Amino acid sequence: MSSEIPSLVIDRISDKAKKTLDIVQKFVEEECQPCDAVARAQMEQMGKRWGVYPPVIDDLKEKAKKLGLWNIFLSKTHYDQGAGLSNLEYGLIAMQLGKSGLASEAVNCAAPDTGNMEVIAKYGTDEQKKEWLQPLLDGHIRSAFLMTERRVASSDAKNISMKMERQGNEYVLNGSKWWSSGAGDPRCKIYVVMAKSNPEAAGDYKKHSVILVPANTPGIKVERMLSVYGYDDAPHGHAEITFTNVRVPVSALVLGEGRGFEIIQGRLGPGRIHHAMRALGSAERALELMIARVNDPDRKTFGKQLNQHGVIMEWIARSRMEIDSSRFVVLNAAIKIDETDAKGAQREIAIAKVMVPQVALAVIDRAVQAHGAAGVSQDFPLASMWAHMRTLRIADGPDEVHLQQMGRNENKLNQHIVAKNEQQRKRAAAKMKEYGFKASL
Amino acid sequence: MSSEIPSLVIDRISDKAKKTLDIVQKFVEEECQPCDAVARAQMEQMGKRWGVYPPVIDDLKEKAKKLGLWNIFLSKTHYDQGAGLSNLEYGLIAMQLGKSGLASEAVNCAAPDTGNMEVIAKYGTDEQKKEWLQPLLDGHIRSAFLMTERRVASSDAKNISMKMERQGNEYVLNGSKWWSSGAGDPRCKIYVVMAKSNPEAAGDYKKHSVILVPANTPGIKVERMLSVYGYDDAPHGHAEITFTNVRVPVSALVLGEGRGFEIIQGRLGPGRIHHAMRALGSAERALELMIARVNDPDRKTFGKQLNQHGVIMEWIARSRMEIDSSRFVVLNAAIKIDETDAKGAQREIAIAKVMVPQVALAVIDRAVQAHGAAGVSQDFPLASMWAHMRTLRIADGPDEVHLQQMGRNENKLNQHIVAKNEQQRKRAAAKMKEYGFKASL
Amino acid sequence: MSSEIPSLVIDRISDKAKKTLDIVQKFVEEECQPCDAVARAQMEQMGKRWGVYPPVIDDLKEKAKKLGLWNIFLSKTHYDQGAGLSNLEYGLIAMQLGKSGLASEAVNCAAPDTGNMEVIAKYGTDEQKKEWLQPLLDGHIRSAFLMTERRVASSDAKNISMKMERQGNEYVLNGSKWWSSGAGDPRCKIYVVMAKSNPEAAGDYKKHSVILVPANTPGIKVERMLSVYGYDDAPHGHAEITFTNVRVPVSALVLGEGRGFEIIQGRLGPGRIHHAMRALGSAERALELMIARVNDPDRKTFGKQLNQHGVIMEWIARSRMEIDSSRFVVLNAAIKIDETDAKGAQREIAIAKVMVPQVALAVIDRAVQAHGAAGVSQDFPLASMWAHMRTLRIADGPDEVHLQQMGRNENKLNQHIVAKNEQQRKRAAAKMKEYGFKASL
Amino acid sequence: MSSEIPSLVIDRISDKAKKTLDIVQKFVEEECQPCDAVARAQMEQMGKRWGVYPPVIDDLKEKAKKLGLWNIFLSKTHYDQGAGLSNLEYGLIAMQLGKSGLASEAVNCAAPDTGNMEVIAKYGTDEQKKEWLQPLLDGHIRSAFLMTERRVASSDAKNISMKMERQGNEYVLNGSKWWSSGAGDPRCKIYVVMAKSNPEAAGDYKKHSVILVPANTPGIKVERMLSVYGYDDAPHGHAEITFTNVRVPVSALVLGEGRGFEIIQGRLGPGRIHHAMRALGSAERALELMIARVNDPDRKTFGKQLNQHGVIMEWIARSRMEIDSSRFVVLNAAIKIDETDAKGAQREIAIAKVMVPQVALAVIDRAVQAHGAAGVSQDFPLASMWAHMRTLRIADGPDEVHLQQMGRNENKLNQHIVAKNEQQRKRAAAKMKEYGFKASL
Repeated sequence: MSSEIPSLVIDRISDKAKKTLDIVQKFVEEECQPCDAVARAQMEQMGKRWGVYPPVIDDLKEKAKKLGLWNIFLSKTHYDQGAGLSNLEYGLIAMQLGKSGLASEAVNCAAPDTGNMEVIAKYGTDEQKKEWLQPLLDGHIRSAFLMTERRVASSDAKNISMKMERQGNEYVLNGSKWWSSGAGDPRCKIYVVMAKSNPEAAGDYKKHSVILVPANTPGIKVERMLSVYGYDDAPHGHAEITFTNVRVPVSALVLGEGRGFEIIQGRLGPGRIHHAMRALGSAERALELMIARVNDPDRKTFGKQLNQHGVIMEWIARSRMEIDSSRFVVLNAAIKIDETDAKGAQREIAIAKVMVPQVALAVIDRAVQAHGAAGVSQDFPLASMWAHMRTLRIADGPDEVHLQQMGRNENKLNQHIVAKNEQQRKRAAAKMKEYGFKASL
Repeated sequence: MSSEIPSLVIDRISDKAKKTLDIVQKFVEEECQPCDAVARAQMEQMGKRWGVYPPVIDDLKEKAKKLGLWNIFLSKTHYDQGAGLSNLEYGLIAMQLGKSGLASEAVNCAAPDTGNMEVIAKYGTDEQKKEWLQPLLDGHIRSAFLMTERRVASSDAKNISMKMERQGNEYVLNGSKWWSSGAGDPRCKIYVVMAKSNPEAAGDYKKHSVILVPANTPGIKVERMLSVYGYDDAPHGHAEITFTNVRVPVSALVLGEGRGFEIIQGRLGPGRIHHAMRALGSAERALELMIARVNDPDRKTFGKQLNQHGVIMEWIARSRMEIDSSRFVVLNAAIKIDETDAKGAQREIAIAKVMVPQVALAVIDRAVQAHGAAGVSQDFPLASMWAHMRTLRIADGPDEVHLQQMGRNENKLNQHIVAKNEQQRKRAAAKMKEYGFKASL
Repeated sequence: MSSEIPSLVIDRISDKAKKTLDIVQKFVEEECQPCDAVARAQMEQMGKRWGVYPPVIDDLKEKAKKLGLWNIFLSKTHYDQGAGLSNLEYGLIAMQLGKSGLASEAVNCAAPDTGNMEVIAKYGTDEQKKEWLQPLLDGHIRSAFLMTERRVASSDAKNISMKMERQGNEYVLNGSKWWSSGAGDPRCKIYVVMAKSNPEAAGDYKKHSVILVPANTPGIKVERMLSVYGYDDAPHGHAEITFTNVRVPVSALVLGEGRGFEIIQGRLGPGRIHHAMRALGSAERALELMIARVNDPDRKTFGKQLNQHGVIMEWIARSRMEIDSSRFVVLNAAIKIDETDAKGAQREIAIAKVMVPQVALAVIDRAVQAHGAAGVSQDFPLASMWAHMRTLRIADGPDEVHLQQMGRNENKLNQHIVAKNEQQRKRAAAKMKEYGFKASL
Repeated sequence: MSSEIPSLVIDRISDKAKKTLDIVQKFVEEECQPCDAVARAQMEQMGKRWGVYPPVIDDLKEKAKKLGLWNIFLSKTHYDQGAGLSNLEYGLIAMQLGKSGLASEAVNCAAPDTGNMEVIAKYGTDEQKKEWLQPLLDGHIRSAFLMTERRVASSDAKNISMKMERQGNEYVLNGSKWWSSGAGDPRCKIYVVMAKSNPEAAGDYKKHSVILVPANTPGIKVERMLSVYGYDDAPHGHAEITFTNVRVPVSALVLGEGRGFEIIQGRLGPGRIHHAMRALGSAERALELMIARVNDPDRKTFGKQLNQHGVIMEWIARSRMEIDSSRFVVLNAAIKIDETDAKGAQREIAIAKVMVPQVALAVIDRAVQAHGAAGVSQDFPLASMWAHMRTLRIADGPDEVHLQQMGRNENKLNQHIVAKNEQQRKRAAAKMKEYGFKASL
């Protein structure tokens, strides 16, 4: 794999990263992918969907630790606790991780733990780090991120309405959250919660706080698990959770009251890049499956193998083009994060956030179609990959919100552009006059 | 609803059909849609997915019979057993049925029974009709259609490989089928099976036969149920079934040895139109849900309700345009079937088969996006509608096969077109000469 | 051609119309198309682009009159001066006319004369009819419609700013217009002008009037001719025209001061249907050219004729599907106009207005691509057809304005839909209770 | 501009290149763009389209030479005669040159001279270099590349049929060529011609040769000029040319008989990258024009400025995304050429060749639409930009040929992929067994 790093970035990849990349690929292909089926079988054997998890993941985590593949998502440019890789380097690795359902967790780089660890590492108190960051870094516990709410349009996060009131030395939380991913897992011990603590504060972005709430705090109830298309995503799962007079000490507050937006904006940046690179890993795998299928000699129709149908060759070509070009977009964003930070790379991250899922959905859908009815079934990972990819056009803000935001940002340059246009018109008029013509228009 | 019949066909709709349409709409909205949740709850209560079915459907069937809504899919133009409606008229009704998961079965117009009843009604012996058609028409039993096979590319039906050998007064079947939809239901008593009976026959389309196999015949084993994007579609389900020395009397043969293609080609025509109209019913419902959502006052983002966002208005407009125009395509095909038959309407049916699922997928996907995360969950029927619509781009032949076929058929006109082009060139040359010019080129 | 009328409308087409359709097709193919080259050659021979026109058109007009093909666009449902055809019937004919650059004018059904004649026939005084309608109906003169202005965003017609002030018995016009199509032709004698006569009137749609201005009125100056993707469209042309104190008698006013919008809204309806059907005629011709090209034995690439390339077959199939389905849309709108009027058919007309050019552009562009470099050149009509089709996405309002309008109109149904949704939720809850379950959500 | 170099490549751009880039941008904006109108006016003043050229270009060339901007397209990695820049660096510069119709020629980097100079520099004899390369490098003469032919499908270059026979010390050429771009210019003195010299040679790619033919050789006749949509592209132009017994000395042969394909394959690589980068320059300019337009306070519709319409913001966002991502694709290909050569970068070049025109067409078309009728006219460069961009989907091979080629090349990896898939299946089975499960399927 290190031999396939694109020309465009090869000179920025350290020898150490190249070596890690090769180890990761071997680990994913030889250990993780083959265990995907084992995990499913173990879940089935246990006979229940929630409150259990497949033991095979613990074996993989042991192996990953021994290989030095642990917490590699924490970039050297912004964190001390990682494996000394840049966001760019980890981007290339994440693409490999995206090819197996177990790989990210096996190397302790699975969402939402990654973002939660970044938050506590960056903004947490020493006590918070000791209590929650360390066990997360060690892979002993898992976590959930509770932000979205069912009853408000939370694609505009200012609408978030869970109440958080200070009473003495405690905060009291009331309300409900949904799409709390990971809350189905018995190892999920800590919730990173966004709530409205200061409704009267001046400024729309100063009313919310982030607070750490242990999953077993009284008053918390997992009401039900949500499905994605028909998938329940056990044992991880997506929960709807109610909070009724949930009390936590004030020391559980992160950074300060009213600083919720400050925290979550930092949280989302590199996470989006991770999602995007894993998504391209899925797309790459879908393309591999499509190529394998259309070359299967048992799949002849109308006297021709599928690989002789012109439309199929065009699908393969377009898929290659789309994956390659969006990969550059993601890698460019990763470099920008390395050079500045998530805020400095906002524009580049936004492009990757919108482009990649659209590309990956198109590639996977072509692969589904090339597999016929098998493509929509459990016999191939394609249908499941598509369903989960589809959520990326909604999660962390729907495409349309990002496109409007990007459009508005680009449009902010208009004063400069209008002025330049005006100047060019004058220059053209001057040149016309210089050459003896009357300026048109 | 009879008040919304498009101008283009209104003059072909009998008063009886208009009345039936209004009764159907009321029945769907007041009885079937509200029972969709009941059926799910009953399934859950029974604690198993297969071998049971929700009793509520029996209540609905009783009501439908009393309303005279029974077997209305059997067109008066080709069958005696129906309710005296044309394919066009039933098309308008099927669009209503598509708005509820239970409605088609409630009026005994659910696939695959519809196609199977058509086959037996058209080609069956009196004995076959008595044994299987009557109970199907009465809604006492259900059926499955066993055609597709996992190990061959059955989008080219000539590849179908299940063995069917005559031994004395019996046929012996060996092989396996999958996507045998409906085989999960305990009421499914009869399989209509396509198998290769005459491998040595001259002519690729003369090697297969259709035969009626009771579901409880020894040697038949349901190996597993397949899923569609995570949905198991219980209690109906999609089975993989093996046949090991399955013996049936020769009297179970339909029409004659080697006449399988003749039978299935007739079977697919009107069925595709039914699918297409129900699909447009789904799309219409998705559009309604989208409109309801974007006008929900709780769904404000960035200070505007969703219905004020320009992009959303464009989604609604495009959805309306796409549904309306494809509806004309389906209705035109239905008229053509009424006037000739499935074969005579091949071209019109093919256009509907390809266009409608693409349009419906686009409309539903916009509705999913407008619902945010709720759209992919079980809280709305959208994700499920999308997943099942997606199979229509594969079932009964993938889009690509139909497009190639259509392209080739259109291209058969080329001799005429080339000749006409040539003649027009000559005419132009003659005119140029007549007016005193030298012909160009 | 009468043999190819779609099933969906065949029962509404009179024998007279069928006969006319056959005569039109023969006339277009045997007379008009062959003379397209003659017209170009005559223009070249005359050595100038403006102030002249190719004499061959007069010969064609004579022939058309003899064949009874004259003013057939005026529907029997709304006008007395036509040939007794409905809008639907003329729609089928217009599709044939769209296959030649000269045909519409040859039968006196060319824009903008058609719309202008409709305006004067419907709203004009007897004097106006005598002076302008009669010579237009006779084909002795031509006309232009002056609405759009360069300096305002006239896709919102309320922005139209040409001044029209009453002074005694005259109106005085000042301002400028552009895209005054047809003003390049020496036979263009009368301008139908939209101007702002009552800037102080209450109501945005009450400030403008329509007035008839002879082309040779002092103060009128054709400033320059505009091009469409490099085409000047001589001898017809698209003019930018200035009005400096242009005086016309008050008797030139149509209908009344401030009634401009009332007039132009009626004007645009059937005209859009004509455009749409001619556009589909172009698309049909492009498809014919594509089929002829890909079957040309000289066009082998990589060992295969183009008609053997899978992608090409798919292009043909999609083109066929798209043309056929949009034709239904146009015919449905035509029926609706016949049954009510342009206002009653607003929704149907809007769908046709937006869909057809998009479809036709796609079909023509595929045909260009299938022709290679020849496709963009003057050797085939394709590039020119594309360029003019492209203007239909802008003329009479850009797609986006129509889509917003359509979206808003559909969305007006939301109260009904939201109420129905609410009712369905209650019904579902009632059913759940009836069957002993607790309602979900 | 040097301040806007993307993160992804900034570390590969020399200080010299950065400085050159800034000089180029200033030169394009302050000198070339303003002179575009002058050139048009001079052409008009001369009153003829062919055999003349606008003198202003000579002034610009003088200025460019003084600024050191001359022959900068010749990359330091493969040629000695350039300005010491890499293909990557020149790529960034070409994007600027694409913003003016005169800029490329002003710095002596205009097609087809660039490709022709590369051919003679790489393969020419000293004599050929002295006679033709030097004056081309000096900008004293121009050239044409004669390859495509009207009567054969030359998207498969093996079909090229112009005869080239050796007679004594001469080659005699007979046949015809078209789309000989640049042949309309009086300064065009030399034709680089591809002809079939060895029809009997073994191997399809060994039958053609490249030969240098002076434009004034007896027997050569420019038959007519072709148009692109409605543009004649004077004074450059696209000629159809016949060769009747055209005699040139054998010393005019390049490289050797039968080596035509070897030569043209090298020729097309970097040229495609230049085209692609200039195309992105056009797209960038179209986006600027769109932004300027939608912020024009005179362009209000329905109470809102265009920049407040949601759809427009989405157009801007998508345009930005598409330009940025395809720029990475081009720059990656440029790096690959720098590191290897055109052959080594075949895959990367092919992606850029197909992607960029599609992206640029979409961006320009949106800009046209945002300008309304003005967008299709001569008042903005948009319609002309679109028409010429459209040819890039055909020139040097249509998209479909490249996509098939790319698809086939990717598919060549299938043996490896199928084998890997098989191995993964075995690994999964082994793991299942290890954990005590039976392998599925």
